[in-house]
Amino acid sequence: MASTALWSRGAAWLRSCRGTALQRGRSREAPGVLRGRGCCREVVATCERYAVRRLPFARLADGDVAFFERLMPGRVVTGEEEVKPFNVDWLKSVRGCSQLVLKPQTTAEVSQILRYCHERNLAVNPQGGNTGLVGGSVPVFDEIILSTALMNQIISFDKVSGRFCCRDPRVPSGLCFGEAKRVLGGAGVYHATRPGSQGQLSHRGERGHQCRRLAALEIRLSARDGAGPGSGKVLADGSALDCLTSLRKDNTGYDLKQLFIGSEGTLGVITAVSILCPQKPKAVNLAFLGCQSFAKVLETFTTCRAMLGEILSAYEFMDEKCMELVERHLKLSSPVTDSPFYVLIETSGSNSTHDEEKLNNFLEQAMASGLVTDGTVATDDKKIKMLWGLRERITEALTHEGYVYKYDISLPVGKLYDLVTDMRARLGQSAKNVVGYGHLGDGNLHLNITAESYSHSLLDAIEPFVYEWTARYSGSISAEHGLGFKKKQFIQYSKPREAVVLMQQFKAMLDPKGILNPYKTLPSALESSTC
Amino acid sequence: MASTALWSRGAAWLRSCRGTALQRGRSREAPGVLRGRGCCREVVATCERYAVRRLPFARLADGDVAFFERLMPGRVVTGEEEVKPFNVDWLKSVRGCSQLVLKPQTTAEVSQILRYCHERNLAVNPQGGNTGLVGGSVPVFDEIILSTALMNQIISFDKVSGRFCCRDPRVPSGLCFGEAKRVLGGAGVYHATRPGSQGQLSHRGERGHQCRRLAALEIRLSARDGAGPGSGKVLADGSALDCLTSLRKDNTGYDLKQLFIGSEGTLGVITAVSILCPQKPKAVNLAFLGCQSFAKVLETFTTCRAMLGEILSAYEFMDEKCMELVERHLKLSSPVTDSPFYVLIETSGSNSTHDEEKLNNFLEQAMASGLVTDGTVATDDKKIKMLWGLRERITEALTHEGYVYKYDISLPVGKLYDLVTDMRARLGQSAKNVVGYGHLGDGNLHLNITAESYSHSLLDAIEPFVYEWTARYSGSISAEHGLGFKKKQFIQYSKPREAVVLMQQFKAMLDPKGILNPYKTLPSALESSTC
Repeated sequence: MASTALWSRGAAWLRSCRGTALQRGRSREAPGVLRGRGCCREVVATCERYAVRRLPFARLADGDVAFFERLMPGRVVTGEEEVKPFNVDWLKSVRGCSQLVLKPQTTAEVSQILRYCHERNLAVNPQGGNTGLVGGSVPVFDEIILSTALMNQIISFDKVSGRFCCRDPRVPSGLCFGEAKRVLGGAGVYHATRPGSQGQLSHRGERGHQCRRLAALEIRLSARDGAGPGSGKVLADGSALDCLTSLRKDNTGYDLKQLFIGSEGTLGVITAVSILCPQKPKAVNLAFLGCQSFAKVLETFTTCRAMLGEILSAYEFMDEKCMELVERHLKLSSPVTDSPFYVLIETSGSNSTHDEEKLNNFLEQAMASGLVTDGTVATDDKKIKMLWGLRERITEALTHEGYVYKYDISLPVGKLYDLVTDMRARLGQSAKNVVGYGHLGDGNLHLNITAESYSHSLLDAIEPFVYEWTARYSGSISAEHGLGFKKKQFIQYSKPREAVVLMQQFKAMLDPKGILNPYKTLPSALESSTC
Repeated sequence: MASTALWSRGAAWLRSCRGTALQRGRSREAPGVLRGRGCCREVVATCERYAVRRLPFARLADGDVAFFERLMPGRVVTGEEEVKPFNVDWLKSVRGCSQLVLKPQTTAEVSQILRYCHERNLAVNPQGGNTGLVGGSVPVFDEIILSTALMNQIISFDKVSGRFCCRDPRVPSGLCFGEAKRVLGGAGVYHATRPGSQGQLSHRGERGHQCRRLAALEIRLSARDGAGPGSGKVLADGSALDCLTSLRKDNTGYDLKQLFIGSEGTLGVITAVSILCPQKPKAVNLAFLGCQSFAKVLETFTTCRAMLGEILSAYEFMDEKCMELVERHLKLSSPVTDSPFYVLIETSGSNSTHDEEKLNNFLEQAMASGLVTDGTVATDDKKIKMLWGLRERITEALTHEGYVYKYDISLPVGKLYDLVTDMRARLGQSAKNVVGYGHLGDGNLHLNITAESYSHSLLDAIEPFVYEWTARYSGSISAEHGLGFKKKQFIQYSKPREAVVLMQQFKAMLDPKGILNPYKTLPSALESSTC
């Protein structure tokens, strides 16, 4: 660390994390592997647990499988054991009953699959990295799973503009991170996408100047022709919307791609993306600090924004319960202890001397004014990674506790933690843990509640209370995760009825038979349980 | 200037602009006031100049005016002279024949106007600041002008988050900049919107970390009920889409607001906006440099991105012809001369010492490697404003030359200036000037061609050549300006047919009678001239 002297000067509480063995247990579980009490149990089928009725789509027939086998020999999965991992979500909280996984490699194949399914009235579940947290990425019933696992070609990378094009919709959901990182890192200039806790591309905290911009999408629609209900308009055969070549700035007509971002596979299948990558920062610093109250977490944030300005790239907070779970289940040890709240501050800039000076000034100020009571800093990659691990592996640690009720809320920052406190008081002993952490800069709270196992009565105690609370303060009931299967009936807490009606009209126009990821994103009054 | 020594050390060519009288002539014309040869001439009516036929909307009747007078007494404009400025665009290039301007003050009034017009089948031209450059902001025929001039209430400003809400759609188009600046500047923390050359909010150059984010919109639709053609869905009475309370992060359902941004009033009327303002930078520096070739402009940009990193907030370029016109017509004098190209580099950061050190390092490097041959720097507000004036008043200077054919193209940066060179060669003596300037970081070129007066034959020499050229290099034919009336027939050069068909379906769904800003944005094969 180039500037240990700087940090330690007048800052005895700042312990460098150099030499601290943060990761005593080295094994990092593959996502979805449950251990402890929740382990090895079969996940209950979604159609058994929830009141949902299968819509009248066609049933898969032998002829359908034969068609797909001819279309893409060797990339049609039908064996029960092979299909199983595609039916269950990452959290092991929902399970579909699909009998078929298709693994197209080209956009032409995706077009042909969608055209065939549209004609046959077969429902389709587009699946990327299967990292969703709201049950949106797996089937509810027997939808055909269209996996993009083999669509991993990198199309182009332009060193001057930082434009990265790849035929892999999993980039936005993070799973091909490794490959993207290799290419971008190889160029030595650009920032690869950094996956969030769940392996998803997320824009953490105050990542203002570092945000990747999703510049363009290539989309496949389900409808082949005469798509619009009653519109009489014709979409071209293959139904491609190839806007991949558009540049950084384009203001010709309506910005269609925006409608597809966050639509969770219900409007079309994204077959390629183009991302504008920012310059790779030359210097990255991290500070991990302890605060004695949430009020101090907020005040530290305000000070930090003012003093770190353009180099502030993340401001994360977590409560002490989160740290307890990470230490207990993952054997990570935090270099900072005995605080009810912790914050992780990341700076990214082009001049390490300048950045360290700014960070040091901020830390001295935060300490002198009593905002922060304990802390550690890191400037080298290995230690930065260790400290990030404490924050990023909270989700993983939580899954070891049993069943996790997950909420991803945005609220005015001042009210953020009140929801956790109120929920804890409300649930009392009926919940094992009620924890809160998140991206403070975005006003984004991850509220997680754990119990030994799923229970209807606990769910009823949480919902709709959590949504009503959020709506009272004009928050969003889903800041990042989407609505998927689990949250779709609650959209009205964040969107007016007129907006939902309009969304339903868009859905009907783009997917007239409703075959694309049915039972997701938008509410339907009709569904009731029958497998 | 705190660091004159830094700049001048080993940099004799760097002349500080302190004390340089950049603005010899002080008078700044109000937009739209033409002088010189183009002055005082009546603008030719759009329906006379272009091949366009009036669609079968109802004609304005006395009863209509009486209705509006009852709805908003004193805010209904009918006098020919009073209506005239609303019929003509800022560039004095197109003219409508509307007989009625309405000035609602509330969203309820906008709803009532749209509902009435929908029922009566009266066409409406929503008009904000009337700063459009593609004929989108004024009527083509006798559309009723719905002016938002009186919708200027500031709803709220949150100091912690920087969220600025106002009931004034003109903020995005820049005209209420003064008022927004007063409120934001008063808070002392946040950045007001900076208008571009045309008084529009624009994100200049490399303004990565400073971009304002348009967080939410409140929208009024034209259709009252049974909106979707054949969809059978009902939009609520008043047709409001109030998504104004949504926070920084919101992922519930489809992102409807994105469809309305850039839709040029053809899908609905935006009645309020919510903008996330960034922290006001504590230090701003400007460098104005001369380059001997466009290749050096590009290389300077690459060097600049690498060395200025997170503080680079603008990188603009302009050719020598631009400077000539600014000097001739506006009596501004450039402190840097005798270069075929000029670049304007702005840095914005939180620490003036750090920023000046970074800028100085960059300038020394740029000079030592011969990228730059002459230049000046500024750190105080007054001089910064003077230097920005050289860039921002190019559009104004151009209007003094006669008729201006304006193109706003995005291209791969390497090809950017080739279009200007090719166009100059193609037009020869038939054009008075062919100039190029723009936001290099965005790959955005403003190509402007002037002539004594409008001529069909010159237009035919320019179009579709300019669009074909742009399409050949996968550029966008409208990076910022939109398509409006003048460019809509050329959308296919930037968007595939399927995308245009989909846009037309959206339009038909949201505005089934097509009364909202007709003849704009999307192409229609049917139109041919008849006033």
